[in-house]
Amino acid sequence: MKKTTPTILVVNDDGITAPGIKALMDVMAEIGRVVVVAPDSPQSGMGHAITIGKPLRLDKVDIYEGIEMYRCSGTPVDCVKLAVNKVFKGKKPDLCVSGINHGLNNSINVLYSGTMSAAVEGAIESIPSIGFSLDDYTSGANFSHCIKYVKEIALQVLKNGVMPGTLLNVNFPDTPHIKGIKICRQANAKWAEEFDERIDPNKRPYYWLTGEFQLNDGGEDTDVWALEHDYVSIVPTQFDMTAHHAIPALHGWKFDVNI
Amino acid sequence: MKKTTPTILVVNDDGITAPGIKALMDVMAEIGRVVVVAPDSPQSGMGHAITIGKPLRLDKVDIYEGIEMYRCSGTPVDCVKLAVNKVFKGKKPDLCVSGINHGLNNSINVLYSGTMSAAVEGAIESIPSIGFSLDDYTSGANFSHCIKYVKEIALQVLKNGVMPGTLLNVNFPDTPHIKGIKICRQANAKWAEEFDERIDPNKRPYYWLTGEFQLNDGGEDTDVWALEHDYVSIVPTQFDMTAHHAIPALHGWKFDVNI
Repeated sequence: MKKTTPTILVVNDDGITAPGIKALMDVMAEIGRVVVVAPDSPQSGMGHAITIGKPLRLDKVDIYEGIEMYRCSGTPVDCVKLAVNKVFKGKKPDLCVSGINHGLNNSINVLYSGTMSAAVEGAIESIPSIGFSLDDYTSGANFSHCIKYVKEIALQVLKNGVMPGTLLNVNFPDTPHIKGIKICRQANAKWAEEFDERIDPNKRPYYWLTGEFQLNDGGEDTDVWALEHDYVSIVPTQFDMTAHHAIPALHGWKFDVNI
Repeated sequence: MKKTTPTILVVNDDGITAPGIKALMDVMAEIGRVVVVAPDSPQSGMGHAITIGKPLRLDKVDIYEGIEMYRCSGTPVDCVKLAVNKVFKGKKPDLCVSGINHGLNNSINVLYSGTMSAAVEGAIESIPSIGFSLDDYTSGANFSHCIKYVKEIALQVLKNGVMPGTLLNVNFPDTPHIKGIKICRQANAKWAEEFDERIDPNKRPYYWLTGEFQLNDGGEDTDVWALEHDYVSIVPTQFDMTAHHAIPALHGWKFDVNI
């Protein structure tokens, strides 16, 4: 009996013309039927933003031969919502992959990342979902050493599925000498901001966000550790943000509102 | 010995002129020294977005007498980052409160919410943080029945602190007959999208995001249940998105990349 070809939704946050999404759609085309819905402009750092106060555009485009592609005026999360509702019309794809991002989305970056938020939205829609990111922030990033891992991880997810309410956050080191794959947890870290203050021609100040990644985690089971040691990191990620371990302590608080 | 007056950062996502932030800053002024840093325009649904590709403005404004206020051109998360770095200059406030949002941020809404993302950013900065939201989406929302709860919860957080890596997500039902406070978990739910398709004068389609809240959770320990039964819901929330329970299964996967 022939197995049905899987349908794969490909999204990203660097925009529909980014080399990273080209690399991802090419390898996904070896596995199944690819449908691309991606932002018409770069949307890095958009997190889980959605477009509320203005309407969205969704246009079919013909960029790469033989691949069904749509350009969306919204955020990465908008792309997934429009894909599910207007492109697939409720008949969900078998897999949602996001990326390959030009830049890491390990550790705390998962919160700010449009790439990961698109994959999270796929998971909310109960579609097995994966975000892929490479430790190279340039538009000329070389994704070739990631491809066999991307394919294998996608095949494993198609075969095994993922636990309900979860997805995978996959990050690649920028080296052709990858040692293997590590299953990790999100490292405890933050960005220590430094705003670069400048003065405009009208003598008013303006600020550019810059910052330094500040690791507060010595664990060897984190994504940061894995990537620093030339492993591919896979963090199973969830969108239940409840701090379940903090519930018992809160039950002990005595609230007095003089009712 | 006199206790030091706490310094309180007040942020929101509905913008600096929203009635919700006025209600919040007024009650916080009864507790401590208030500093407001809020977006210059509505930023609902911005999630954890940050501004990367363009510079930010931060202007001191004089809207309400006696309160130090700054208007920021960026997202709610940008507001917190600029507050910490440029307003407090590294000397962190004792509390970060966000809201009061015009509209609920319970359940899955925590992901899309600019209000909650600002509070999450406060928590990332190790500032005890709380997001407040009311089940009334109108600009004329009446916050009066929330005020004593807002004050009491803020006082409890100042007294007890919160667990590292966590913050509180507080939602209010839209009734003056509140029955009390419930400590909850985030309900499992999603938005079932319905894009409203229209045709512009140039005969091109455009889409408005609409949708219906779809609860997939019968639990009586959820924020949705509490709010439906006229309780204030408090969900301890974390920014470690690792699905720790999914790690063991992934260790069993046999990846073959033919190295």
